[in-house]
Amino acid sequence: MKNLILYNYFRSSTSYRARIALELKKLNYEYYPIHLINNGGEQHSEDYRKLNPMGGIPTLVHDGKVIGQTMAILQYLDDAFPQTQQLFPKDFFEKAKVIQFCENINTDIHPVQNLKVLKYLKKNFSTTEEQNEHWVQHWITEGFHAVEKMAGETSKDYCFGSSVTAADIFLIPQMVTAQRFHTDLSPFPTLNKIYKNCLELEAFKKAHPFRQVDTPEDMRIS
Amino acid sequence: MKNLILYNYFRSSTSYRARIALELKKLNYEYYPIHLINNGGEQHSEDYRKLNPMGGIPTLVHDGKVIGQTMAILQYLDDAFPQTQQLFPKDFFEKAKVIQFCENINTDIHPVQNLKVLKYLKKNFSTTEEQNEHWVQHWITEGFHAVEKMAGETSKDYCFGSSVTAADIFLIPQMVTAQRFHTDLSPFPTLNKIYKNCLELEAFKKAHPFRQVDTPEDMRIS
Repeated sequence: MKNLILYNYFRSSTSYRARIALELKKLNYEYYPIHLINNGGEQHSEDYRKLNPMGGIPTLVHDGKVIGQTMAILQYLDDAFPQTQQLFPKDFFEKAKVIQFCENINTDIHPVQNLKVLKYLKKNFSTTEEQNEHWVQHWITEGFHAVEKMAGETSKDYCFGSSVTAADIFLIPQMVTAQRFHTDLSPFPTLNKIYKNCLELEAFKKAHPFRQVDTPEDMRIS
Repeated sequence: MKNLILYNYFRSSTSYRARIALELKKLNYEYYPIHLINNGGEQHSEDYRKLNPMGGIPTLVHDGKVIGQTMAILQYLDDAFPQTQQLFPKDFFEKAKVIQFCENINTDIHPVQNLKVLKYLKKNFSTTEEQNEHWVQHWITEGFHAVEKMAGETSKDYCFGSSVTAADIFLIPQMVTAQRFHTDLSPFPTLNKIYKNCLELEAFKKAHPFRQVDTPEDMRIS
């Protein structure tokens, strides 16, 4: 048994964040799939809620220490494995700017277009698939305009200069979700450039939703 | 002119977080009010968007350095003012657990019940005030069940043991919002205990939404 276990789901963008971090740091981990739809959503099971009361994914377990929420997981991995590639800058103002960038995605974009919110809309306001897709596109587009502006001021190859940071780890999975919901990404040239650069990196490739053990056969890419 | 300026709004729960942090640290700051409703929402003005492209509040400016997002602001204040009361534990696993707690509120509860989401619901799905209130109550109640469980395992006087941490700074403003939307808080005895203990502290009192320069006269408390 490995001393790092990641409870996660191939398609979840928050899971993708944690996998990229682990791959960038070249840390071996056990992949424990939590299916968000089968069995009424395995994240709601009693066993999983013991690990993560919010029922969110991913959850990282390191030598028995249990951590949820990707902002916590990424910062913990930097601290617990200081010899590995660091995801946040050492300078504390630069670090704050990276956290701000991440949180724009983590709070302003992702939660509002999350699966459980879409389910609530459908159930309570009888929204159509099309209305839900517009909802997702709306929050992503609004948020990406701000993120594009921020990246435009700081990006060279990646969100901040020419080194990968946590900002890229939050951005790329959100762009994959944007594509999945047919969001027009043409107004975001800086984000598209960063996406292209990141997807050339081994860590982002290996962590990609379509290359996981729980990726359904018909979605797999090589 | 002070070297710390906080752009914020009396009623915004994220603004309240930043004010509590500044008060706990006994840092003097200039209060710059951004009215979220007047003039179509002052957070949307061109000048404010230059400071904070996402148009979110609060924004902290320290000696010309501009930081948005409360998770970034709180961590920055710990780093920039190491002699003041620290909001995150030094031990990095404990720190990760505090961040996880904060993020459960910051990502799973707050963004979904935010003003801009309620406006979208009303405009696009013609929701009534009552439906919007149920929406807010739903996300707060669901999230608080998880947060209550986490706090039940770690709380003594506050969320983590007997010292105030960032977790309390994220929790209390969310509880004030919960009350405002008439959420039943009786299922959350641990959270209620923490709320009572925090509200006895000078920092939480001084930072309270009803005691700010931009609090309307009829909402003011002494």
